[in-house]
Amino acid sequence: MRKNNRKNNELRELKITENFTTNAMSSILIEYGNTKVLCTASIENKVPLFLKGQNRGWLTAEYQMLPTATEKRTKRESQQGKQSGRTVEIQRLIGRSLRAALDFELLGEKTITIDCDVLQADGGTRTASITGGYLALEKAIEKLLETKELEKNPLKSKIAAVSVGKVNGEVLLDLDYSEDSIAEVDMNIIMNNKNEFIEIQGTGEGKTFVYKDLLDFIEISKNAFDLLFLL
Amino acid sequence: MRKNNRKNNELRELKITENFTTNAMSSILIEYGNTKVLCTASIENKVPLFLKGQNRGWLTAEYQMLPTATEKRTKRESQQGKQSGRTVEIQRLIGRSLRAALDFELLGEKTITIDCDVLQADGGTRTASITGGYLALEKAIEKLLETKELEKNPLKSKIAAVSVGKVNGEVLLDLDYSEDSIAEVDMNIIMNNKNEFIEIQGTGEGKTFVYKDLLDFIEISKNAFDLLFLL
Amino acid sequence: MRKNNRKNNELRELKITENFTTNAMSSILIEYGNTKVLCTASIENKVPLFLKGQNRGWLTAEYQMLPTATEKRTKRESQQGKQSGRTVEIQRLIGRSLRAALDFELLGEKTITIDCDVLQADGGTRTASITGGYLALEKAIEKLLETKELEKNPLKSKIAAVSVGKVNGEVLLDLDYSEDSIAEVDMNIIMNNKNEFIEIQGTGEGKTFVYKDLLDFIEISKNAFDLLFLL
Amino acid sequence: MRKNNRKNNELRELKITENFTTNAMSSILIEYGNTKVLCTASIENKVPLFLKGQNRGWLTAEYQMLPTATEKRTKRESQQGKQSGRTVEIQRLIGRSLRAALDFELLGEKTITIDCDVLQADGGTRTASITGGYLALEKAIEKLLETKELEKNPLKSKIAAVSVGKVNGEVLLDLDYSEDSIAEVDMNIIMNNKNEFIEIQGTGEGKTFVYKDLLDFIEISKNAFDLLFLL
Amino acid sequence: MRKNNRKNNELRELKITENFTTNAMSSILIEYGNTKVLCTASIENKVPLFLKGQNRGWLTAEYQMLPTATEKRTKRESQQGKQSGRTVEIQRLIGRSLRAALDFELLGEKTITIDCDVLQADGGTRTASITGGYLALEKAIEKLLETKELEKNPLKSKIAAVSVGKVNGEVLLDLDYSEDSIAEVDMNIIMNNKNEFIEIQGTGEGKTFVYKDLLDFIEISKNAFDLLFLL
Amino acid sequence: MRKNNRKNNELRELKITENFTTNAMSSILIEYGNTKVLCTASIENKVPLFLKGQNRGWLTAEYQMLPTATEKRTKRESQQGKQSGRTVEIQRLIGRSLRAALDFELLGEKTITIDCDVLQADGGTRTASITGGYLALEKAIEKLLETKELEKNPLKSKIAAVSVGKVNGEVLLDLDYSEDSIAEVDMNIIMNNKNEFIEIQGTGEGKTFVYKDLLDFIEISKNAFDLLFLL
Repeated sequence: MRKNNRKNNELRELKITENFTTNAMSSILIEYGNTKVLCTASIENKVPLFLKGQNRGWLTAEYQMLPTATEKRTKRESQQGKQSGRTVEIQRLIGRSLRAALDFELLGEKTITIDCDVLQADGGTRTASITGGYLALEKAIEKLLETKELEKNPLKSKIAAVSVGKVNGEVLLDLDYSEDSIAEVDMNIIMNNKNEFIEIQGTGEGKTFVYKDLLDFIEISKNAFDLLFLL
Repeated sequence: MRKNNRKNNELRELKITENFTTNAMSSILIEYGNTKVLCTASIENKVPLFLKGQNRGWLTAEYQMLPTATEKRTKRESQQGKQSGRTVEIQRLIGRSLRAALDFELLGEKTITIDCDVLQADGGTRTASITGGYLALEKAIEKLLETKELEKNPLKSKIAAVSVGKVNGEVLLDLDYSEDSIAEVDMNIIMNNKNEFIEIQGTGEGKTFVYKDLLDFIEISKNAFDLLFLL
Repeated sequence: MRKNNRKNNELRELKITENFTTNAMSSILIEYGNTKVLCTASIENKVPLFLKGQNRGWLTAEYQMLPTATEKRTKRESQQGKQSGRTVEIQRLIGRSLRAALDFELLGEKTITIDCDVLQADGGTRTASITGGYLALEKAIEKLLETKELEKNPLKSKIAAVSVGKVNGEVLLDLDYSEDSIAEVDMNIIMNNKNEFIEIQGTGEGKTFVYKDLLDFIEISKNAFDLLFLL
Repeated sequence: MRKNNRKNNELRELKITENFTTNAMSSILIEYGNTKVLCTASIENKVPLFLKGQNRGWLTAEYQMLPTATEKRTKRESQQGKQSGRTVEIQRLIGRSLRAALDFELLGEKTITIDCDVLQADGGTRTASITGGYLALEKAIEKLLETKELEKNPLKSKIAAVSVGKVNGEVLLDLDYSEDSIAEVDMNIIMNNKNEFIEIQGTGEGKTFVYKDLLDFIEISKNAFDLLFLL
Repeated sequence: MRKNNRKNNELRELKITENFTTNAMSSILIEYGNTKVLCTASIENKVPLFLKGQNRGWLTAEYQMLPTATEKRTKRESQQGKQSGRTVEIQRLIGRSLRAALDFELLGEKTITIDCDVLQADGGTRTASITGGYLALEKAIEKLLETKELEKNPLKSKIAAVSVGKVNGEVLLDLDYSEDSIAEVDMNIIMNNKNEFIEIQGTGEGKTFVYKDLLDFIEISKNAFDLLFLL
Repeated sequence: MRKNNRKNNELRELKITENFTTNAMSSILIEYGNTKVLCTASIENKVPLFLKGQNRGWLTAEYQMLPTATEKRTKRESQQGKQSGRTVEIQRLIGRSLRAALDFELLGEKTITIDCDVLQADGGTRTASITGGYLALEKAIEKLLETKELEKNPLKSKIAAVSVGKVNGEVLLDLDYSEDSIAEVDMNIIMNNKNEFIEIQGTGEGKTFVYKDLLDFIEISKNAFDLLFLL
């Protein structure tokens, strides 16, 4: 039995708080159950060196867990002098996923930075970051359109993400930490609202999975995306 | 006129949210007006090398601003590969101040880490961190006493902090960012509830102040401490 | 038309050179066409801190490109003072994939390090690293069994990897750099020789893919794995 | 009894050696008893990024202890890969204090760097650095006026610093290391020669102090400043 | 007796493989017995800051050992966050030595980077790097002349290097690791084909050598250089 | 003509100040003309990991230039986050040279650290560091013998160093910066007082030298060593 009698294909309680902080262009506090991530979007009127002079924009993402987001305090990366491999891997995934939402020629020479700071971690921080990060991106684009800093909407589609996994032989949607830590397989699915995949990452972490598992994972995620695209 | 018709000797609205996050031993979200700092306390049953074998404990503090806590996004320190000088200076101040609250022999061979993560900055983040950090410390000690991990209460006194300053010739309590950025002088006062000073730091940052200013600063802070020690 | 009249479902020419270097426990120079990766395995009779005293072993992987492996020289990471995000992401993938090959209780308190140094890059360096890294692992285990440093074989299965992608609407196996750089979608598939998935990573990098693409990708990879498991 | 029968309100023997080194614009070897700090001033005709195009100058300070300045050798920061928190805190204090001496519009687009290298430490290295740093600054300005690189003198006042503290209940001026290490309170006072405060930092480091102590500290520092402004 | 009945004044078997990799401007895999170094040359049409606007070029070298080049795996420098002292010292030597081959005015505003990556180490990696690095330089210059990117040949002479040493009282040429590790003295001699010295570095590493040793070292190196300049 | 009518084979004025600082085991301020280096020796009763349990000691050296030691201020290495290549190369040379003076079995499980801090640089800082470092070492050993921390004297010989070079075709001893910066060749010779070489490093830095130069360099250094071993 899952916590709170949750069904296998049921998301945890979702909560979106807009403007929890107000200095960024937009700010979304997203909660998937006990996982809380503060996602913000910031805009700069310049692009990285490799894009200079091409009339195209860019989006980059940064991810971080507060030291006490986890049950056992983790060391602060700024004190370690570098980001952990896990952090680097996750923020690259968030960036790639959200870049799929944008037409960079319509954006013009702007860089959007999505900051995802995990205040509390209970499984699924990367999928919460992508879903929350997309919402922050959407709000920021709305403001740029309102203030005429953008003429045309560069958003091509909505983006959202869910994790699915297999625990004791059962396929489960949106694993919390207690499930994730004993999962046989774990897959992150990132889709847009045109029923297209942005990225799929499935890993057995020492275990394996078969073709049917893959199809089941995709199947069970469908209702979740319907719900997430209503946000 | 100050924002919201605030009087010169009036604190901004104070708000304390307990257990905003739940994985640390204790967690306090403290707000001084628009300044929001998440303060948590974590405990480890070991001490730094320099204290080994002395039957004494230790307290250390870490401070960080989220990149979008400020009006203009600041770079993430974990990406820069080191903490800024400002961060280092502030977390040393928080640590020294809160160490004054504890009898380390009663604490025994434990290290308490106070994490102060600034979610939103509007002036006074270091004083909010000290006041909030003390409250997180107090809650953590309560839990250790309840669970009998501590026999005797190692807290010697309550600690709180306020900033005072001089703007356009007027002495003001608890400066927000709009006031702080044009202040002639800025002083952080850290006291305990026995009417003793823990630390005083007054700086003109390019300007100067006189003896009478110093006395005025201390005078105006008095009511604030009465109020803060009721938290 | 692909280079050298290669068919869509055809691997590039594979070449395996054993003992290209001789100081590690085993050494494999693997070539997928012009992609050349030197993969070695080293063994230490100790485990990372988090595994101490559990009678279990560990496997870790490191990946690096020589500066002139690429058409345009890339900066040396040891001079930059840190590994790039791309490097970190890839070496984590190699490590996770190869850990799926081992029964760590049978391995005992040993750490195996797989070093994958890319001498020349022409697309598919991560899949070449996994396939070559597995072969180096296999050779090292053989030696440990011969010298009786291991009593029982800890290998649970063979592991190999291929990349697949979609270029101009066609599904292609084993993309070279000229194909990869214009691919609409790119997927790395890591399998064992029991027809089980170890990891799947599919990314549109700004583009998207649909359900049918996913099934096509898996289909086209099948013959390649048959071939790779003969190595 | 203090060493050498020093009275409670007496400075240690002060010694100023000009031009101990000759490559910087100016060089002062300052000694407060056994504390020896080499302070130099260097000038560049450019300003930090944040000041570009404002016709204003800047002053920055760097502080460092030689490894064998202390009784027990301390590790070299360049080998540790970063400056210690203590170093960062002190050099920020020196910089803020000396910036109060200058009219940056009169200085124009120049950056002055004050280097304070502690050759031997016996307490009071930060106050010696400020007093010595000011003298190096004064000499450098004199040379710039002589060579007409500056038209008008940008110095607004002289700056000096002393430490005061309380040891065994007695208020003492200019603590040496043996006194500092057992002090109940320690305060650094930085003033200009117009009887104005530049910065005050008082800390109990685990102990506390009361209002009367604060007034006593300021009182006992007065004669010292009279003397220091004669340098 | 030396391995393979090698005579005291005999080089190990030399092997040069051109174009082992093909992305750099030129690539040489050089082998002195079991020592294998991949040397490549890359060209950029710009110069370091300190040479800007002088119509002169530059050459710089980088050296690295793969982790498993040595008998006992060495840690990867990119993971340590910095190059070892040994690496830094060697790459500075390679750079200085090869700069002696070039007329930088004829080269014009170009920077040549020589990368020396040690795939397998069996003594003499620095001399193999210099000799192989020179050959890569020569090939790169040939290509630049062919493509008319250079009008005149900037090479002033050929450069090569050998190590000599004294083991059990005997003077030996081209020490392998088993000899080097017990050598009393070790000298690296770098010469050009005009019988001029580029650099000499002789070190006893805790032992000493006398005048006659120095003369013997130079004498025994002569035949080697004759041979190396035929490469 | 050399400055101060110095002859080609004449050292600059040498000045040795003992106990310029007093916290290290020994301290020597050595001056070769305007080059001033503070050399100290510190002792710890432990050895590096690679020597544990062998009843042998070790000596290590660290070298650093103060930022204003040079005519143009150089950046502080602790702020850059790493030591420069030049610094690393020099401190390795100092360490190797001074290790030749010691019988490490007689020293026992102790580590001696020689710190060479260049207060002012006018050419020849590495040779001044070695000569001064040796003197600091000698004084430290004397103290250890006096206090019976050592029973037998582990010093095998005296060590000193000089630089020689060729400027406008003339062979010169002990080059100052004005000579060094235009030298065709530059050689550092390190010897002991038994007429044995410890290390020789000759470099043309883009230029070359011939056999006769080498013999001349050694010849001209002879008188200097006679003088240096009287220190």
